[in-house]
Amino acid sequence: MAYSNAYAPSAPELPESFDQQQQHHYPYQPTQHFSSSSSGMFSSETHPEIVRSFESADRYRSGFLEESELRQALLCSGYEGISNRTIRFLMFIYKIPGDSLLRLGPKEYVELWNCLAQWRAIFDSYDRDRSGKMNSTELRDAFYHLGYMLPTSVHQLIVSQFDNGTGKTVELSFDSFLECGMIVKGLTEKFKENDPGYTGYATIPYDVFMLMIVPFIASYD
Amino acid sequence: MAYSNAYAPSAPELPESFDQQQQHHYPYQPTQHFSSSSSGMFSSETHPEIVRSFESADRYRSGFLEESELRQALLCSGYEGISNRTIRFLMFIYKIPGDSLLRLGPKEYVELWNCLAQWRAIFDSYDRDRSGKMNSTELRDAFYHLGYMLPTSVHQLIVSQFDNGTGKTVELSFDSFLECGMIVKGLTEKFKENDPGYTGYATIPYDVFMLMIVPFIASYD
Repeated sequence: MAYSNAYAPSAPELPESFDQQQQHHYPYQPTQHFSSSSSGMFSSETHPEIVRSFESADRYRSGFLEESELRQALLCSGYEGISNRTIRFLMFIYKIPGDSLLRLGPKEYVELWNCLAQWRAIFDSYDRDRSGKMNSTELRDAFYHLGYMLPTSVHQLIVSQFDNGTGKTVELSFDSFLECGMIVKGLTEKFKENDPGYTGYATIPYDVFMLMIVPFIASYD
Repeated sequence: MAYSNAYAPSAPELPESFDQQQQHHYPYQPTQHFSSSSSGMFSSETHPEIVRSFESADRYRSGFLEESELRQALLCSGYEGISNRTIRFLMFIYKIPGDSLLRLGPKEYVELWNCLAQWRAIFDSYDRDRSGKMNSTELRDAFYHLGYMLPTSVHQLIVSQFDNGTGKTVELSFDSFLECGMIVKGLTEKFKENDPGYTGYATIPYDVFMLMIVPFIASYD
């Protein structure tokens, strides 16, 4: 069965009502891309602020950021209030592919930075009263804009994880929005790796299944 | 491909070296089973201590235990130091099948109680010096005794979740052991539901994949 529109975990068209200009008030939007040969150093087109924040956080000039260094880099770049748990998700999703260590190089850091800028812009475009909160319906629309069309059952389950069992209306902070988003993005991408034909079904060996999920169940915060 | 011994997520034979008698010092070991008609009330063979703990925790005499009530029931039954996160896993794994609410009936509570007693006995059988800790090798052996033969890569990944990124030798408390165990048990059972022929491969639709994993990524503690 191919993905129906009802629950395609793929990238739908942006609806006409979405104003691309909304993103422009955020600095350091994605503008440059790396060639595969540029891994290990920044492209000359990289915004200086990104390079500066990486180099400031890279305490031992290793050329990589570990988890604690990423935490510091984000804090110094104005991303306050991001939980250790969300930072662990970011590390896991953006880590160097195939590297046994949990670390980011310049290429991965730029990708992560661009993702955060995009998600921050989407969050702010829904938070017009600057309350710093987003409700369940807005979350669904935001996911749609980011390319994730979630089945209703999945959306409801994700939202219910944030109501502390109260069943009350959820108001998500930017950190919670980012945490939800990294769960959806991370799991959907892992699923797609095992569904190369985009059929809506993935055939997964047991060890791959466990290895792809356990990092999301990171224990500490 | 059928499961090889190298990573069969199924129930292997107990090795000869494992002394079944080790479990006997624990009270309330599994002795009774329910018929399907007994759901909603305790079997007459249920140990009175189990009935008493359920009824004491069931504040509103609803006939069910919610998450906070289970926490209270376990605390009063001598299971101290079990984290909210582990209790959430227990609720998720033992909840009434098909029930939209996260709650336990008597039948589910007995099953959970028996599981805890078994896991406590296994933990204690490895903790001969009563330090309250278990190392990585002992964890692997304990999983084996409980019927889970994990691929090395999966075992290492799970253990690494508990070293707080230090890479140091992990010493697991009973709560961490239980948390590991519920992750392995829960995910393996979900996998098996999608691999009825025990081939080692599961074919899973996207929404089922997301619905089975998101509850393990519960946010709060």
